[in-house]
Amino acid sequence: MAGSKSWAERVLQLLNRMNSFHMQGSSKPLCKKFVVEGQEVGVVQPRLIPLLSRYPEVFQVSDGDGGQVELSRRLSNYQQRSDAIEQILGEWRSEKLFDCLGKWRNEKYNVMSRFSDPSLLKMERSAIGLFGVKSYGVHVNGFVRHGDGRMSMWIGRRTQNKETYPGRLDNLVAGGLAAGLGVKETLIKECEEEACIPEAIASTAKPTGTISYTYEDEWGVFPEGQFIYDLELTADFVPQVGDGEVLEFYLWPLEQVKELIAGSEFKPNCAMVAMDFLIRHGILDPDNELCYHQLVEGLHREM
Amino acid sequence: MAGSKSWAERVLQLLNRMNSFHMQGSSKPLCKKFVVEGQEVGVVQPRLIPLLSRYPEVFQVSDGDGGQVELSRRLSNYQQRSDAIEQILGEWRSEKLFDCLGKWRNEKYNVMSRFSDPSLLKMERSAIGLFGVKSYGVHVNGFVRHGDGRMSMWIGRRTQNKETYPGRLDNLVAGGLAAGLGVKETLIKECEEEACIPEAIASTAKPTGTISYTYEDEWGVFPEGQFIYDLELTADFVPQVGDGEVLEFYLWPLEQVKELIAGSEFKPNCAMVAMDFLIRHGILDPDNELCYHQLVEGLHREM
Repeated sequence: MAGSKSWAERVLQLLNRMNSFHMQGSSKPLCKKFVVEGQEVGVVQPRLIPLLSRYPEVFQVSDGDGGQVELSRRLSNYQQRSDAIEQILGEWRSEKLFDCLGKWRNEKYNVMSRFSDPSLLKMERSAIGLFGVKSYGVHVNGFVRHGDGRMSMWIGRRTQNKETYPGRLDNLVAGGLAAGLGVKETLIKECEEEACIPEAIASTAKPTGTISYTYEDEWGVFPEGQFIYDLELTADFVPQVGDGEVLEFYLWPLEQVKELIAGSEFKPNCAMVAMDFLIRHGILDPDNELCYHQLVEGLHREM
Repeated sequence: MAGSKSWAERVLQLLNRMNSFHMQGSSKPLCKKFVVEGQEVGVVQPRLIPLLSRYPEVFQVSDGDGGQVELSRRLSNYQQRSDAIEQILGEWRSEKLFDCLGKWRNEKYNVMSRFSDPSLLKMERSAIGLFGVKSYGVHVNGFVRHGDGRMSMWIGRRTQNKETYPGRLDNLVAGGLAAGLGVKETLIKECEEEACIPEAIASTAKPTGTISYTYEDEWGVFPEGQFIYDLELTADFVPQVGDGEVLEFYLWPLEQVKELIAGSEFKPNCAMVAMDFLIRHGILDPDNELCYHQLVEGLHREM
């Protein structure tokens, strides 16, 4: 019974779900590395191997222990690699081979081994789970410090027409890092679009770390890294619904946010972002939360 | 040449050294789990296996893929298990089998699978690396906020007669969690002993997370987890040298602390604690530090 589980047990369950690729029973031991120009940029699940083998001019599949799927070296630059993948994804989309491609976003993500590396190609966002490509985003914890030292946090509710997690709770502002935009630049753009926060305020947001996790679902493998910023707002500032991604905003005491994190109302990675805030701001007590170490480690699994 | 490396490259080197057990070339693939009462509480390096096999009444060594070293189930309670290990360690100490036991501390650490689990036995602190047993500590970042928004951090220098890392830089206060004491309780005790910080001030320290890492050296395998607290001090408070573990204290701007982290003056895990502070307080910028994600992940490797 969910009701009988402690707060920490419920949060550990969430962290395990968000790290399902690292757990026993995942496809991890059977996956092949996805390699571009000698660099490991993703993972390919076994179900994709027969399909990829049909494109020997693009994918070179090798077997055995060090088995991998390598993008052909004859595709010798960013544009050639991006075009080759784009064409194949277009075919799969027309043939309706994968449900995920039905959610085609017309938004490109950079593909590289580490965030600090030059991009090797760009790939349609809805397809990255098929190649286990890492994606990055930026999340903003908006908070207000009250006179008595207590804090409240701004929480958004996603509209019902969001493709993922409609109606769920979200951080004040969040967005994926598309090819070509910086982290702070994306933050400022999303603050304006999603919550009508002017640049003069958004630019005061402070970077405070990252969370990282890898989950696997019926659509693929998703290693994700989020850059976390804290944005302190004055008590009289009220974010406004902007581009229709958010239904409304709530200003809630941290105790309430803490309870909600362990429930099912939050979009899961947004619950992790809010939990990171609670930990950093001393709301969780190591002497009372006996799983404190696991809670922190679960927010920072290597991608 | 060290001088030609960037700040981030030097810090990543530090993180890799502190996670050496997870790196290629470590003894990790050859180690056996150390199991007590069915729970994995540590790891045993191959060099120890022949020796442990000489005590079949205490250690049951099994071979093969799932090979492990299990503490005999006939040792059925905390006291029996602690006594059996203590006796063997005493023999090894007399026979001068291991250098680490020459540094006998007469301080006991609890042995358990996770910090939240009940302790299964206690073990002399200087021996835990032989069994790859996890140990925990608490570290305090002492800082001062100046009128202009800038911050400085209190840094201690270890005395020359410390057994480990004499003369190196340290956090304001740090200490291991010995069997039977809570985290905050240990913090308050160490604040008083090491830096003459009265309880009324020490108790305002706020928990802000953890760091975790596992290194391997000639003495053994060391999975360590540190609870991190931030203690804001007023500009007029000056910590005083207490029990002689610290030579002197310095109040340094965060920019200076940042530079020192990438050098060799800091005790390595204290550099990690200070870096966690810099990250949480927005001193590192994701758009400038391209390895930002790796820096954060390197502070939080699963033990």
